[in-house]
Amino acid sequence: MCAVVGVFNVKNASKVAYYALFAMQHRGQEATGITSSDGKRLYTKKSKGLVNDVFSDESIFDFLQGSKAIGHNRYSTAGSNSLEDAQPIDAKYLLGEISVVHNGNLINKDEVREKLIKEGAIFQSDMDTENIIHLIARSQKESLEERIMEALDDIKGAYCIIIQSRTKMFVVRDKYGVRPLSLGKFPNGGYIVASETCAFDLVGAEFVRDVNPGEMLIFRKGEEPESIQVYEPDPRPCAFEYIYFARPDSVIDGKTVYETRVKMGMQLARENPVDADIVLPVPDSGIAAALGYAKESGIPFENAIVRNHYVGRTFIEPIQEMRDLKVRLKLSPIKSIIKDKKVVIIDDSLVRGTTSRQIVKMLKDAGAKEVHFKLASPQIKHPCKYGIDTPSYEELISANLSDEEIKEKIGADSLSFLSLEGLVKSLGKDRKYSLVSFDGEYFIK
Amino acid sequence: MCAVVGVFNVKNASKVAYYALFAMQHRGQEATGITSSDGKRLYTKKSKGLVNDVFSDESIFDFLQGSKAIGHNRYSTAGSNSLEDAQPIDAKYLLGEISVVHNGNLINKDEVREKLIKEGAIFQSDMDTENIIHLIARSQKESLEERIMEALDDIKGAYCIIIQSRTKMFVVRDKYGVRPLSLGKFPNGGYIVASETCAFDLVGAEFVRDVNPGEMLIFRKGEEPESIQVYEPDPRPCAFEYIYFARPDSVIDGKTVYETRVKMGMQLARENPVDADIVLPVPDSGIAAALGYAKESGIPFENAIVRNHYVGRTFIEPIQEMRDLKVRLKLSPIKSIIKDKKVVIIDDSLVRGTTSRQIVKMLKDAGAKEVHFKLASPQIKHPCKYGIDTPSYEELISANLSDEEIKEKIGADSLSFLSLEGLVKSLGKDRKYSLVSFDGEYFIK
Amino acid sequence: MCAVVGVFNVKNASKVAYYALFAMQHRGQEATGITSSDGKRLYTKKSKGLVNDVFSDESIFDFLQGSKAIGHNRYSTAGSNSLEDAQPIDAKYLLGEISVVHNGNLINKDEVREKLIKEGAIFQSDMDTENIIHLIARSQKESLEERIMEALDDIKGAYCIIIQSRTKMFVVRDKYGVRPLSLGKFPNGGYIVASETCAFDLVGAEFVRDVNPGEMLIFRKGEEPESIQVYEPDPRPCAFEYIYFARPDSVIDGKTVYETRVKMGMQLARENPVDADIVLPVPDSGIAAALGYAKESGIPFENAIVRNHYVGRTFIEPIQEMRDLKVRLKLSPIKSIIKDKKVVIIDDSLVRGTTSRQIVKMLKDAGAKEVHFKLASPQIKHPCKYGIDTPSYEELISANLSDEEIKEKIGADSLSFLSLEGLVKSLGKDRKYSLVSFDGEYFIK
Amino acid sequence: MCAVVGVFNVKNASKVAYYALFAMQHRGQEATGITSSDGKRLYTKKSKGLVNDVFSDESIFDFLQGSKAIGHNRYSTAGSNSLEDAQPIDAKYLLGEISVVHNGNLINKDEVREKLIKEGAIFQSDMDTENIIHLIARSQKESLEERIMEALDDIKGAYCIIIQSRTKMFVVRDKYGVRPLSLGKFPNGGYIVASETCAFDLVGAEFVRDVNPGEMLIFRKGEEPESIQVYEPDPRPCAFEYIYFARPDSVIDGKTVYETRVKMGMQLARENPVDADIVLPVPDSGIAAALGYAKESGIPFENAIVRNHYVGRTFIEPIQEMRDLKVRLKLSPIKSIIKDKKVVIIDDSLVRGTTSRQIVKMLKDAGAKEVHFKLASPQIKHPCKYGIDTPSYEELISANLSDEEIKEKIGADSLSFLSLEGLVKSLGKDRKYSLVSFDGEYFIK
Repeated sequence: MCAVVGVFNVKNASKVAYYALFAMQHRGQEATGITSSDGKRLYTKKSKGLVNDVFSDESIFDFLQGSKAIGHNRYSTAGSNSLEDAQPIDAKYLLGEISVVHNGNLINKDEVREKLIKEGAIFQSDMDTENIIHLIARSQKESLEERIMEALDDIKGAYCIIIQSRTKMFVVRDKYGVRPLSLGKFPNGGYIVASETCAFDLVGAEFVRDVNPGEMLIFRKGEEPESIQVYEPDPRPCAFEYIYFARPDSVIDGKTVYETRVKMGMQLARENPVDADIVLPVPDSGIAAALGYAKESGIPFENAIVRNHYVGRTFIEPIQEMRDLKVRLKLSPIKSIIKDKKVVIIDDSLVRGTTSRQIVKMLKDAGAKEVHFKLASPQIKHPCKYGIDTPSYEELISANLSDEEIKEKIGADSLSFLSLEGLVKSLGKDRKYSLVSFDGEYFIK
Repeated sequence: MCAVVGVFNVKNASKVAYYALFAMQHRGQEATGITSSDGKRLYTKKSKGLVNDVFSDESIFDFLQGSKAIGHNRYSTAGSNSLEDAQPIDAKYLLGEISVVHNGNLINKDEVREKLIKEGAIFQSDMDTENIIHLIARSQKESLEERIMEALDDIKGAYCIIIQSRTKMFVVRDKYGVRPLSLGKFPNGGYIVASETCAFDLVGAEFVRDVNPGEMLIFRKGEEPESIQVYEPDPRPCAFEYIYFARPDSVIDGKTVYETRVKMGMQLARENPVDADIVLPVPDSGIAAALGYAKESGIPFENAIVRNHYVGRTFIEPIQEMRDLKVRLKLSPIKSIIKDKKVVIIDDSLVRGTTSRQIVKMLKDAGAKEVHFKLASPQIKHPCKYGIDTPSYEELISANLSDEEIKEKIGADSLSFLSLEGLVKSLGKDRKYSLVSFDGEYFIK
Repeated sequence: MCAVVGVFNVKNASKVAYYALFAMQHRGQEATGITSSDGKRLYTKKSKGLVNDVFSDESIFDFLQGSKAIGHNRYSTAGSNSLEDAQPIDAKYLLGEISVVHNGNLINKDEVREKLIKEGAIFQSDMDTENIIHLIARSQKESLEERIMEALDDIKGAYCIIIQSRTKMFVVRDKYGVRPLSLGKFPNGGYIVASETCAFDLVGAEFVRDVNPGEMLIFRKGEEPESIQVYEPDPRPCAFEYIYFARPDSVIDGKTVYETRVKMGMQLARENPVDADIVLPVPDSGIAAALGYAKESGIPFENAIVRNHYVGRTFIEPIQEMRDLKVRLKLSPIKSIIKDKKVVIIDDSLVRGTTSRQIVKMLKDAGAKEVHFKLASPQIKHPCKYGIDTPSYEELISANLSDEEIKEKIGADSLSFLSLEGLVKSLGKDRKYSLVSFDGEYFIK
Repeated sequence: MCAVVGVFNVKNASKVAYYALFAMQHRGQEATGITSSDGKRLYTKKSKGLVNDVFSDESIFDFLQGSKAIGHNRYSTAGSNSLEDAQPIDAKYLLGEISVVHNGNLINKDEVREKLIKEGAIFQSDMDTENIIHLIARSQKESLEERIMEALDDIKGAYCIIIQSRTKMFVVRDKYGVRPLSLGKFPNGGYIVASETCAFDLVGAEFVRDVNPGEMLIFRKGEEPESIQVYEPDPRPCAFEYIYFARPDSVIDGKTVYETRVKMGMQLARENPVDADIVLPVPDSGIAAALGYAKESGIPFENAIVRNHYVGRTFIEPIQEMRDLKVRLKLSPIKSIIKDKKVVIIDDSLVRGTTSRQIVKMLKDAGAKEVHFKLASPQIKHPCKYGIDTPSYEELISANLSDEEIKEKIGADSLSFLSLEGLVKSLGKDRKYSLVSFDGEYFIK
């Protein structure tokens, strides 16, 4: 859960990167950063905070000069020993300067790091991105291209990596293509690579194609990008990107996210029909699936939970009378719609179950006769190790409780999940998917 | 367009007011303030900014002590000579201290002010609320009650006023009841009065009833609120509150806002049928009406324009390539849903037409075969003078162009409005409404 | 303790006012504000905070347009019911708009306010400046000049008032001239009036003369300022301005503040000789007097207490080991200079004695053999009611303890004050002074 | 020009480090940081900004837990490719985690870095401190002690280094002892090492002794610090620390800074007598030397230039009339003292001459009959390469102009410098000093 962007041969490249990162803010709100290059040296600004806060001052873009830039949004992760971890990571090494951003997760991070440390390397962060730089720097190969390829042989996992030198840019996607990565082009020339196509729409770039699983793209001045198929592709795009992580208007590996969500809702309706009066989404995560459910079941869709758009990060400590304040600050039910109704409430997935219980209570308090909680994805029983920050087994409610027990716990009248088969059917049976959170088959060894 | 709240006989009253103002943030984002009373004196904190920013420090609530509080959110208005206008307005006068908040607009503000100034009064702001305080202070009556009533005789317009003395609170709604105002009660005792019922839901108060048009409520310690029907009621609730201003989960004068919007959309479908493939809302303003339109017409509803929730106030100056950036920062179309479709796009109302043109262009760029723009309210041809900040005649597109001309200007294939008759039908023919923006009948003389 | 400034007929008058207020920041750090006029209307920006923080944004000066401006720095005072009291105070009244700033204290504030309130006036602050505006607004006289003069007849106290209308500026100093007020002129035309001449030096104006006690200056467009001697002058400039309040480089009523302080130190040496090795100032308040003491006594001056210039407003809670941290954050002794020495330490005045005790302890801890604490002003036994915010009788150490008791309390080996006679001698016997804090003779009745 | 601190075996060590860094803020205002250890892992917070701004939130100290901490203030240096360079630098390496701070300058930084890079090392900053970590990490020695010693053999320059592992702290000062470094002890146990003794005074630690040139101190839990004389000492403390860089109350290698400055002023008077009426210091840098000059010459000292303590970093753009505003914002002359006088003005040193010219003009404008500019140090003709950020040859006025030419340029009636011989005499002839800025003898090869 992160976003990467690379911009090549575009005037004010760092501004383009800034807007692209803004469009992908949903993929990571903890920290952000941009490294630009003017062909002579690299310039970096990175910090904790939202894109619009970190880059709030026009003068930063005078510093981030040049027609090449890479950028990163970082999702919060626990356990860092620095308050300030952020990407890109820059380094000076034998061939000059490079800067690296990475979205994904390297499963052999610890072994690689241990080996590098034994050879005398030092690490200044907990980010696996730092491994990649070290491997490149330690390679004995002559060119950066060869060094990157040698480094790739040493890492395992799900990754989308963008590497910038003073004059070139290298883009790599792992052979499974777990995380999305697309190539776009500007009408006036110049390229952009980004985690999601919604970034292209904002900055005015045209979608060219997805970066292939196992492919490396090399951008050099005055040339078309060179494509090298480094590894045999074995595509397994992450189902979770479709289920909840990507923005609905993004197109991942040929499928629009919104449409797959509607299909999951339709499939959910076929698998789990119920006698009810209205279908409600949990806003905004369940909207597309709820529309699908309503369409397939014929039960009317109502947007009867209002989301407050002014929710900030911190609030003054409430007084005792204000129970359940936390969920109510964000969500408010429209009572007259809900009262005395049999309600189907749809969300995209169930992780810890905390908010779900509050929502069921909120609907019952609003007078719902029955509350049927339906999830447009299967039970999450395993942590994802490929770049989605799902919690550990202890916290995953479906890893610990049966559906019946969960139903009791959240106080719903019924609870149902989309089947794994149904999920795959909704996504399209034409290919395989990364489904580790559901089936526990960790296919990257 | 403002929000008022009054809290009486509740522990930490200022915190309750703070949360109520937060729930009503949509009614005014320019400035906010709270005055509390501990029975001995009044305490005020007010400033420009959002509720959560102005009241970001727990220590403010130590200062705002007492079990009584009133508060205000102020909508931005042009032409002030101070950068810092905010309410409540406090004043020391013959009977002690009072603090006043006001939502609405006094149409005889200038005459009253002129008369007061001739008598030697000074004004420190442009806010009409200051008139009210002067009238109370200048009255020769003995009690605050009588003084308020005398002051009310001198003002004309749409108003919801809350006045706080050290020990009492007075609440008044004009005889037409143009702006909404409701009374709520806490389970453990104590009262709240607020512009919208959504405030009650957040702070855990129960809706009791609306304040009647022409009614004054007086709250005294240890007593039930006293009701005085100061003026004969002639109810004309503002249609605009239902059309777009109030929060959808609020109940105004007995009708849930969301439901009236769905009905407007249904009526719009009956009046203006069209041959189309999908119905889209302008998010979030058009959602309820679009659901109604889809329901009535049978054309499928698609939530195919994504709204970006991270939009901040300011952005770095974009580079030239990023045309139409402003609307794209907020809204993104889902191309695969829109492409080659005949699209009905629904918004709540049409004011200047600027955004509408951008949205039509956005849909056409996304491949829409036809774009039919439909508004769930009639043509706005007159400025509201009763508390909604509609622009002047010059800026109101329907005051200057025919429907056909507007259609051309925004680039739509067709354009239609809900009829005035249809609006009233949707709201309920059981009573009259304030419809001045549509029919220009300024009924308050 | 406040500062006022008025700028007339100068391009970008608000910027000139800003720099003048910056030069007079020492007279008040709580709040600041400026009102400008472009001849058509008044523009105000005021807020809590330092001059450089409140006016940190160039765009404010686009708002504060015009060639006339007045400004104010406010000293913190307890007991306000608003967190945001600041001047100028603007008002719309019969003749148009005025804006007022005031430095001083009106001793009949409460009576005047009571009378005005009885007549129906309202007060929105606790500041006595609001009285002045009301009196002007209520006058039945035709011109603003006459109204101001009528208003002046109703107020008593020490005051320097600047009143700005859309086209004119009025400057008044009370007949005792307790607070300083000077007139300056710009080489290219245009005038400035300010509490201290140090403001002229910063903005590049030339000192013309002091505003006379009892004088009113009227500035009109295209004319030289008109002078009206409204009251018979009876000059009694405040001794405290010379003792510690004004900036050393300011010239008040013909005497440079620094020089009077040196003289006080010399007189202190004549009155209170001591056998000692070195003379130290409490930085920076005691420097000039310590130089005088050293010069007269022949005991070497050493700048042996270092002041930390980075002291901010708040600090992290220290751990227990860091005793006496508060004074050490600000002041550090140079031990090798102090060790085994008989030390004379000089400060300008003794108010509560809190810091003095800490300084004596600090010097003893640094190894001083003897510490002789000497004050370059007499015992402060009475609160000033004429505009200096001295504490009440309970807090004034010399109002409650004998010199001997104070000496014990602060731990010094000896303690002595400048005599009242000696103070007057140092200031010059050519005129009378306001000495109320020392002799309790409240001469304004 | 930087400050380092190490705290060992003290409760809330990070808070002690914070206050120590605050006391040494004058040594570096660009960035600051602290790394603490609780024996299990290291915790770091570092950022651009002043100590009190970066550590403004009590919660940071909950994060920076443990009884050991090191910290750093960084002086601004040009040419960094990151906006955010700050120390400590943390690294994970073979033996665990270390964190390093460094004050000084490694003259063979580039060769070492080149060699390390050839071996595959990567560098993430331009700071020479990163070299040290790499050398330690790459050493094949078993213990951290041995690795540090091996690393020291590879570096050349002036350095004070503090290295923290999870359980130990290592302190090293180069064999010349160019930069100051002292050892202190807390009454209740625990140690502190800091660049200047003024830090001890603030946090309540007692001075024990200076760290010897060439000495390494090793702090281990439950033991007294072990001392290893790694290199034969050849002491050459930096004359500049005494001349202007250190705080006057600090004691460096046995001499109080303030006292050496007074002696320089006295020697200056002996070498360069002049017929004058008053001696003025440039505040605050020239105060001690001016006192010495006055004492020796018998010419009266006057503190006749007032320093404004409210000077912030940025100011609103002034209007044209405000010439010479920049220096006047900071310094104001007391005209009545200066007028018609022959003035000696003393500063500690002359670097570019820009401010000096403005001060001479200011004094002439104030009416000085003659202005004799005297510097309490010799002509700076060479850049310091040992940790003081003196400008390059092009900018050093004495490297480019004769004394006579400089006198003309700054507009003084005479100009004189302390002789090199006189400087050494003032500092004490008992040892050698680092005088490279004056004599260009770069003794570290």
